[in-house]
Amino acid sequence: MPDSSSVPSSPASYVVALSCPDGPGIVHAVTGVLAHLGGNITDSQQFGDPDTGRFHMRVQVTADLDEASLRGAFAPVAQRFGMEWTLDALGRPLRTLVMVSKAGHCLNDLLFRTRAGQLPVDVAAVVGNHRDLEPLAGFYGVPFHHLPVERGAAAGGPGSKEAAEAALLALVDELDVELVVLARYMQVLSTDLCRALSGRVINIHHSFLPSFKGARPYQQAHQRGVKIIGATAHYVTADLDEGPIIEQDVHRVDHGMATAELQAIGQDVEAQVLARAVRWHAEHRVLLDGHRTVVFR
Amino acid sequence: MPDSSSVPSSPASYVVALSCPDGPGIVHAVTGVLAHLGGNITDSQQFGDPDTGRFHMRVQVTADLDEASLRGAFAPVAQRFGMEWTLDALGRPLRTLVMVSKAGHCLNDLLFRTRAGQLPVDVAAVVGNHRDLEPLAGFYGVPFHHLPVERGAAAGGPGSKEAAEAALLALVDELDVELVVLARYMQVLSTDLCRALSGRVINIHHSFLPSFKGARPYQQAHQRGVKIIGATAHYVTADLDEGPIIEQDVHRVDHGMATAELQAIGQDVEAQVLARAVRWHAEHRVLLDGHRTVVFR
Amino acid sequence: MPDSSSVPSSPASYVVALSCPDGPGIVHAVTGVLAHLGGNITDSQQFGDPDTGRFHMRVQVTADLDEASLRGAFAPVAQRFGMEWTLDALGRPLRTLVMVSKAGHCLNDLLFRTRAGQLPVDVAAVVGNHRDLEPLAGFYGVPFHHLPVERGAAAGGPGSKEAAEAALLALVDELDVELVVLARYMQVLSTDLCRALSGRVINIHHSFLPSFKGARPYQQAHQRGVKIIGATAHYVTADLDEGPIIEQDVHRVDHGMATAELQAIGQDVEAQVLARAVRWHAEHRVLLDGHRTVVFR
Amino acid sequence: MPDSSSVPSSPASYVVALSCPDGPGIVHAVTGVLAHLGGNITDSQQFGDPDTGRFHMRVQVTADLDEASLRGAFAPVAQRFGMEWTLDALGRPLRTLVMVSKAGHCLNDLLFRTRAGQLPVDVAAVVGNHRDLEPLAGFYGVPFHHLPVERGAAAGGPGSKEAAEAALLALVDELDVELVVLARYMQVLSTDLCRALSGRVINIHHSFLPSFKGARPYQQAHQRGVKIIGATAHYVTADLDEGPIIEQDVHRVDHGMATAELQAIGQDVEAQVLARAVRWHAEHRVLLDGHRTVVFR
Repeated sequence: MPDSSSVPSSPASYVVALSCPDGPGIVHAVTGVLAHLGGNITDSQQFGDPDTGRFHMRVQVTADLDEASLRGAFAPVAQRFGMEWTLDALGRPLRTLVMVSKAGHCLNDLLFRTRAGQLPVDVAAVVGNHRDLEPLAGFYGVPFHHLPVERGAAAGGPGSKEAAEAALLALVDELDVELVVLARYMQVLSTDLCRALSGRVINIHHSFLPSFKGARPYQQAHQRGVKIIGATAHYVTADLDEGPIIEQDVHRVDHGMATAELQAIGQDVEAQVLARAVRWHAEHRVLLDGHRTVVFR
Repeated sequence: MPDSSSVPSSPASYVVALSCPDGPGIVHAVTGVLAHLGGNITDSQQFGDPDTGRFHMRVQVTADLDEASLRGAFAPVAQRFGMEWTLDALGRPLRTLVMVSKAGHCLNDLLFRTRAGQLPVDVAAVVGNHRDLEPLAGFYGVPFHHLPVERGAAAGGPGSKEAAEAALLALVDELDVELVVLARYMQVLSTDLCRALSGRVINIHHSFLPSFKGARPYQQAHQRGVKIIGATAHYVTADLDEGPIIEQDVHRVDHGMATAELQAIGQDVEAQVLARAVRWHAEHRVLLDGHRTVVFR
Repeated sequence: MPDSSSVPSSPASYVVALSCPDGPGIVHAVTGVLAHLGGNITDSQQFGDPDTGRFHMRVQVTADLDEASLRGAFAPVAQRFGMEWTLDALGRPLRTLVMVSKAGHCLNDLLFRTRAGQLPVDVAAVVGNHRDLEPLAGFYGVPFHHLPVERGAAAGGPGSKEAAEAALLALVDELDVELVVLARYMQVLSTDLCRALSGRVINIHHSFLPSFKGARPYQQAHQRGVKIIGATAHYVTADLDEGPIIEQDVHRVDHGMATAELQAIGQDVEAQVLARAVRWHAEHRVLLDGHRTVVFR
Repeated sequence: MPDSSSVPSSPASYVVALSCPDGPGIVHAVTGVLAHLGGNITDSQQFGDPDTGRFHMRVQVTADLDEASLRGAFAPVAQRFGMEWTLDALGRPLRTLVMVSKAGHCLNDLLFRTRAGQLPVDVAAVVGNHRDLEPLAGFYGVPFHHLPVERGAAAGGPGSKEAAEAALLALVDELDVELVVLARYMQVLSTDLCRALSGRVINIHHSFLPSFKGARPYQQAHQRGVKIIGATAHYVTADLDEGPIIEQDVHRVDHGMATAELQAIGQDVEAQVLARAVRWHAEHRVLLDGHRTVVFR
């Protein structure tokens, strides 16, 4: 979480995202705080889930005060309703670390969109278990860190998964990373790492989950003869391929397409689905609702 | 507008849809009225359009009071902000009249969905300028009215457009019709009729507007060699094919499809787009925002 | 297979669909037979699957001869290449039996399209294990047969699955049924029946297979929080939900939709996917390629 | 057209694409030539357009002979049926020149796909009327040529449209360019240039043609309140925005999206539609059929 003491010289815009047990009066209380501060609500969405009994809200507000004051004013109502909440300057780039292996389509897409101003993230580092994408990171001026994971490495020793994950956590700490994106990173994270970064890691899975979990989904799709393939962006949990889904999309295929062509089509879908998930997360549009997500688009 | 004096014996659900000039405090004032009455907001969406300066809101509320009391309590805040507003019992079927010519795909779809409980409308009558669809209306127990429009008819005389429109307006009045759906009704409404029923007539246009306005759009699409065709549901205004768009959808086509096949595919899209537009309108999800619509899905 | 002895008085159109082991000269041999008979090829598609080593072809031809002559002329080349093949008059309606339970959206869609001339089938009978859809069949003039399947019925006795399936097979035989469509028929067919009607039964599964096999897929989809739902039309085999896929389609959903709404949206997709599968099958566009299908659209 | 005298040491694969007046015997004649040469057809598609009376065919063949021999053997049948035809080594990269202005999303996409082996093109040069994308071309090792077009430039003088087009034609000639791609090149080509490069220039138009022709289509789309936006790849003709359509695609939008967001979504669609059109063209899958295209996917 960044330093919130900066004082804007003119009206500033903020986003508040919150979840709490559902009940009467929440919206009125939230809007009351904001109105009392002279804030103008420019966008607001709510959703109460009858299954989980949780209430979710995202509100954008423009006000002539600094973030610390707004935070202080909001804290009592948050406490009263037992809210989990986030308050951020609207559009502030999220400090992001991207993990990759050899396939560059997702990384290329993320970096291009970021430079084009379409993704509110600040890519602080690219981490690869291979060096293939170092030049691409370099072209966009992003530091590349090579953290190899070798099969034969002694546990905890150089090249081991433990060593790579320890180095990753150190980077996350050192660079104040708020979001880790697995952009076709072909390693399974350890349970400990999943827990340490819970809610802060987004993965792109190359199938329409829950179909074709695990490895080689395009080959599975080809063998099953499906007529549509897809991709799924989800939060990473210790339960592989079962984390809360943020976004999915699909593309039509036909019998004439070999596995390689399914893969090429699928990569387009992967890049776009991942970009949408990252953008919505960075804009605080994604809220956890049990094992599902609420996405205020 | 139905009689609002009914007294629910237990908590009842309502929907309020409103538009007004944008400004601070609107959401807080609206939620304040509802909170004061002990209402519980179950769904709420807002949108302020920076282009038009208009604010739009739709809120569903459950409360232990009757509609008249709620209406009375809400009126002052509505007046204060200069709102155009609707208050209705949630899920109340809208009294609807469907106009047809010979093609039955949209009528069949609307009647089937209504019986299946998927469309909150009560189809009070089907009006056709031909008799082809009388049996279909009959199967669903809906009265059919034949109002022919003949080319050679004397203006105002039997079979004339003027006579048909006068009879239609009489039906609308007699049956307390709240919504008129042009379900592939192949006649252009007069400017006077458009004005008399402004905001209450939905048409399905068999193209992806603004492409291929006017007649024979599938033939136009075939000749131009487009790779995608579509349909558009819009409110009817005096300016033909230019009314505010409620919903659109498309389907992929290819060079091998003759005009007749484009038409068959297009009819699927028409029926679905129209059904969505009618449902959203009947659920008070569609608000006018200048020449555009805001759709709170 | 219908009597093929009818003699057309003028050029007639035929469709030939064939599969055989891949190898050189097949297309040339097939087109040679047709050219020799003075036939004009109006449409032709081929596909050789490198995985299965099978070659598939569908060709439409117009010729001034009757079906028996064409069949006789084609038999030698079919034998030479070891073809499985079908020859039919182009557009001949396939004699079809539709099986239903209580939900009518697919039946309504099939019957409406058939009457509208969009589906080349002749619905000879509707079979239901409940009577709910008898009036709908009646409206379209199709005989309805009630074959109840009751849980407590003695095996083989009245109301038993064995009795219902025996009656179904008798109907198929008596009515010369070429295609059986399970239009949301909520019973699992026995292995024996699956084998007896192999390649002639199309089912619509209410999920995007292979996701959410088995019962209550919309509830499963809601619980998993997927962002897209779908439907799958497939040939029925003894291996439940694993038969060759003919067609699939999907629709976007979001967190705000309850299971019932997913179901309503899903039913639209089901009806359309099933209609496409039935049409393609009836037009001899679907060829089996191992556990997959080749669809010449 | 490249030198066709190379001699493959083992069976080589070719693609033949042809168009001619429709009539009996074409497929048989074509497949006869190929069978006579010992060729094995691995893929073949045909389409006879009843509107234009033109027949189109694309066939892939593997044979143990060089391109010149195949060309020589095919020429007589081509002449006999009055064919326009192309014969090429399957997968041979097309020599391509990409024209750009300032927006890089399409160029980035084309270069990334080309390097990833997904596009059978060899990008010989990037030409820009601005220098903004020179570094991106450089990263992919493609020479960049700056051909400015300035409003105030004297006709034919430095910086004039005439000078830029002359330099472009010289480049096309010098580099043996087979395909020119306008990847959001914001200049209208002269009628003379359109004619000189007829059938060899593909443009991406940032709307779903024929909607919103001309400038600022996303602003037009926003103002009209459409619910879906799209992009169109087409061959460039002297008649602006009216050239034969190769591919189109769309994306859903809603009332909450400002013009800038429509533009960002639209750019994704643009890049993908253009990439598909370029790939299909380079694979000789696109055939002209009057003002339409036949696309053998």
